[in-house]
Amino acid sequence: MKIINGIDKMKTYARIMKKENKLVGLVPTMGYLHEGHLSLIRTARKQCDTLITSIFVNPMQFGAGEDFKKYPRDIKKDEELTKDCFVDALFCPQDEDMYPEDFSTFVDVEKLTDSMEGASRPGHFRGVTTVVMKLLEIIKPDIVYFGQKDAQQAFVIRKMVRDLNMDVTTKVFPTVREEGGLAMSSRNTYLTKPERKDASVLHRSLKLAEDLILSGEKDTKKIIKKMRETISGVPSAKIDYISIRDTKFLKEVSALRGEILIAMAVFIGKTRLIDNIMLDMEKQKGVYVSGKSQ
Amino acid sequence: MKIINGIDKMKTYARIMKKENKLVGLVPTMGYLHEGHLSLIRTARKQCDTLITSIFVNPMQFGAGEDFKKYPRDIKKDEELTKDCFVDALFCPQDEDMYPEDFSTFVDVEKLTDSMEGASRPGHFRGVTTVVMKLLEIIKPDIVYFGQKDAQQAFVIRKMVRDLNMDVTTKVFPTVREEGGLAMSSRNTYLTKPERKDASVLHRSLKLAEDLILSGEKDTKKIIKKMRETISGVPSAKIDYISIRDTKFLKEVSALRGEILIAMAVFIGKTRLIDNIMLDMEKQKGVYVSGKSQ
Repeated sequence: MKIINGIDKMKTYARIMKKENKLVGLVPTMGYLHEGHLSLIRTARKQCDTLITSIFVNPMQFGAGEDFKKYPRDIKKDEELTKDCFVDALFCPQDEDMYPEDFSTFVDVEKLTDSMEGASRPGHFRGVTTVVMKLLEIIKPDIVYFGQKDAQQAFVIRKMVRDLNMDVTTKVFPTVREEGGLAMSSRNTYLTKPERKDASVLHRSLKLAEDLILSGEKDTKKIIKKMRETISGVPSAKIDYISIRDTKFLKEVSALRGEILIAMAVFIGKTRLIDNIMLDMEKQKGVYVSGKSQ
Repeated sequence: MKIINGIDKMKTYARIMKKENKLVGLVPTMGYLHEGHLSLIRTARKQCDTLITSIFVNPMQFGAGEDFKKYPRDIKKDEELTKDCFVDALFCPQDEDMYPEDFSTFVDVEKLTDSMEGASRPGHFRGVTTVVMKLLEIIKPDIVYFGQKDAQQAFVIRKMVRDLNMDVTTKVFPTVREEGGLAMSSRNTYLTKPERKDASVLHRSLKLAEDLILSGEKDTKKIIKKMRETISGVPSAKIDYISIRDTKFLKEVSALRGEILIAMAVFIGKTRLIDNIMLDMEKQKGVYVSGKSQ
């Protein structure tokens, strides 16, 4: 596996792969890889000739009071893990190369970023779309892979790709969960042992919503109320938001039809966690479609 | 010459050219082609294997009170002119294809767009960078050509290309002028005959600034004062801005050194015109460098 730090070197490598007519896949990550990343990487490995993984803890997508500095990093372990997954090239650019001092160009997806993560974390999505745009321009992959855990991010990137007429295909794969249901996340490392137990309440409340909907509940207010009650049962938990939205415009829905996203952010102690499920209301009362790709 | 309206058709054509290893050039325009465009097109024709010209009066770069609706259009004549210049493909997309109803992604270059055209025309550069990004993603040219008349635009596009790690080379070629010095512009069509004569005062004041600098004047305030006096001599003229700036950050300069841009926007009657010159202060007292390419 090649380890590439320089942007120009990455461009050269990617251009050679293109010339050789390889189908190039990119799994962009912030490193500290867990089974969620690895399952994406393994899927991508099967689908692509050349598989590139990027590791870049993108300062631009962290807000002022957020955890950029303490975000967990373990590049040596990430190198081993990606090598074991037969990744062809690991791209680890430097902050100062990605954002030179006079950097001043930004990509914004409006509307889709007004709510949920965009509302709770101002500037977050500008950071995400700008860095993903840069990675896509550097690597020019045929396919780029995202995890459903960051559902809104995936919707936003797809919108950017469509609006700007970019050639890449965006694929989204299911959230990988720990035994208790907790969605895999590099941030789970912040949790104490009891908090980790408490954190399973996110998934539990999502499953409750799914069960309610499957058994015929149509009132989104009632569903959210019951989810809130479940979460309130855990003293360390503090809800940031719970929201039920359509999957086209990410608008809050009152009537449950088509494809819906139930998404949440909850603090467990000081750690902010997100999770979501997607349901298809048309296909047999709510088929779970989290694995849906483009 | 192929005339292409559909975005997907344009992509297909451009991808075939790439596959055939053609060096692809793009001259993006808003149509109503004049000698300024044509000289760009002729230069590009010599440098590229495949030459694409786009014509798109981009609604996003016009402000609310501006001239989008009355902007001159003559697609039939443009077709003839580009054909005569041996353009390979003319890309004329539709508004509704470029900006579908739910379009919501924007590219912004900050700082460079704070002043001059950016200050006088809020939102203008967001429109320019967004549409150019789209055109570059659709066509993926090796070289994209701009005229120096829109100097700030050229700087902004170059910054976008650099910041977002895009592969295209941006080339800028000199402003073409009418006999009296008036910079060619599609908007000159708005001028009455006497106004057209009056409009030569823009270039006259720029030449005055150049002469002053070449003869040793170093005080930018004095230079701008003399330029203002020249323009005030023409009753139909009303200055929007006159500015002397470095060509790296487009910051207003007081000391004349390195490469400088003297730029202006002036209303002649109701018509807003822009013009500029660039001077290199290092190379022998002020060599005229308007034809400088990247």
